[in-house]
Amino acid sequence: MTTPAARIDKLVVVGVGLIGGSFALALRAAGQVGCVVGVGRGQINLDEAKNLGIIDRGHRLDGGWTRELADADLVLLATPVAQQEPLMRAMAPHLGAQTIVTDAGSTKQDAIRAARGALADALPRFVPGHPIAGTERSGAAAAFATLYAGRNVVLTPLPETDPLAAATVAAAWTSCGARVHVLDAAAHDRIFAAVSHLPHVLAFALVNEFAGRDDAEELFRFAGGGFRDFTRIAGSSPEMWRDIALANRVALLAEIGLYRAELDRIAALIGAGDGASLETAFANARDVRLAWAARVGALPPAAAGDGPGEA
Amino acid sequence: MTTPAARIDKLVVVGVGLIGGSFALALRAAGQVGCVVGVGRGQINLDEAKNLGIIDRGHRLDGGWTRELADADLVLLATPVAQQEPLMRAMAPHLGAQTIVTDAGSTKQDAIRAARGALADALPRFVPGHPIAGTERSGAAAAFATLYAGRNVVLTPLPETDPLAAATVAAAWTSCGARVHVLDAAAHDRIFAAVSHLPHVLAFALVNEFAGRDDAEELFRFAGGGFRDFTRIAGSSPEMWRDIALANRVALLAEIGLYRAELDRIAALIGAGDGASLETAFANARDVRLAWAARVGALPPAAAGDGPGEA
Repeated sequence: MTTPAARIDKLVVVGVGLIGGSFALALRAAGQVGCVVGVGRGQINLDEAKNLGIIDRGHRLDGGWTRELADADLVLLATPVAQQEPLMRAMAPHLGAQTIVTDAGSTKQDAIRAARGALADALPRFVPGHPIAGTERSGAAAAFATLYAGRNVVLTPLPETDPLAAATVAAAWTSCGARVHVLDAAAHDRIFAAVSHLPHVLAFALVNEFAGRDDAEELFRFAGGGFRDFTRIAGSSPEMWRDIALANRVALLAEIGLYRAELDRIAALIGAGDGASLETAFANARDVRLAWAARVGALPPAAAGDGPGEA
Repeated sequence: MTTPAARIDKLVVVGVGLIGGSFALALRAAGQVGCVVGVGRGQINLDEAKNLGIIDRGHRLDGGWTRELADADLVLLATPVAQQEPLMRAMAPHLGAQTIVTDAGSTKQDAIRAARGALADALPRFVPGHPIAGTERSGAAAAFATLYAGRNVVLTPLPETDPLAAATVAAAWTSCGARVHVLDAAAHDRIFAAVSHLPHVLAFALVNEFAGRDDAEELFRFAGGGFRDFTRIAGSSPEMWRDIALANRVALLAEIGLYRAELDRIAALIGAGDGASLETAFANARDVRLAWAARVGALPPAAAGDGPGEA
């Protein structure tokens, strides 16, 4: 391929789950992809992906999948982020001279560190990416063509990234219906530590704390809709979030510190009985939250299945 | 009225909003109420309640509403909790010898304190209550007859509460389709400090902390579905939550302390790079959350209007 936005004749998706499978389906729906090869840990999921028309053929990670890379136009890594470095290491010797590599991980500085250590000559054709989309379900059966419609995708190119490679990846996501943004990787990790990783940790912590108590059964009996929404993201994949928390630990710990300071401040207002300051803080939060919700009205509703949102 | 579950010939609702208005509509739908008198701060809302068939007539709080109490079978206080004590004080001299008083506040020890100080001889006919239901909307126009269908209502009778009064209030809520539970008031406040008041404070704190930052605009631009669900309850009424936080401050501060300890523990695991313990904590939370969601599958879906749930 020589121009961005050109059709991807051959796409390899490593990790054919909700994210990778939906990327393939969206490109198929847009008529922007030819052959799709799936790579994954389990044969059952690969078979399902083939039966669902997501991929044309599949390889297990312990099979000869790297043979598919030499003539691939684009490889998408859509696995938990801790698996990226070994995958890149395995891929590197087999990538074609034109093959572009991108990923869908929720943390970007670690993806870049992995690529710098593993991709060798292919590094300029690596375009780090993060689609801000997801549902509570996982696996190929959860994939659907419109997952990315109207959603944000952040790309964090390196200084040495080939602009043509970045433009090609951007065009692919645009074909999926997404809005593409470009950020510095450190800015990306700082922003998502705040708006995504921190809330997940806070929700996991709340449910875990309740679960360990003697009165847990009573608490959960009376928990209602507020608790349900607040803890929806605590239903997310422990493996994926372990990886994210560790990959982005510096930014995440900084966010936890800022959050604790605000929580301490509000606890002090409650302790002091300072109703006026408390109402000011709550009213400010309410106003900002409602204004934000009005702006992003196009976000899809919470999944009917009552699971977490995107990473 | 002489037997519980008897029809309520005359109901007075103080605070004709979502909670009070829906109670009246549900009793009407069940054929369990005769005349409904509404009392409120604003004439516009009272007029709307009358036009919507929620009340038969309305009085402003600065009008002669206490004249309606002598022959009332039941009075429901459905206002922010800090208003309960002055209302009870105004009501006490005018209550009929048979008039039962109940409330719908989110904290119960303070309602009992208010009643002990204000209701005098009527104290045995006060039945503290807390319906666990709500949507993000407020005012009479938000009321609907099925708000309480399948939802929990907690009653926290006093040692001196007349059992017939408690049975009458329980029967009214049952007529609304609710499941009635009886708890000790201190246990109620401890449980709801954990499952409701704490999450609200945590969500208010997160939005407030973000809103005060230099990079607030960037944060909100990239906030997605996880942030949306986690902070939905931060769209709740600041006045109502100020009152709840102060009314239940002892239990709430204890819950904030327990939560901070768990958050600190998880932050330490992240800092130490202890992926195994982190995954254990996240997996435990995930399992407990999913099991809970499966049990309470009958909870209504999150409000389409993207606001908070119940208090």
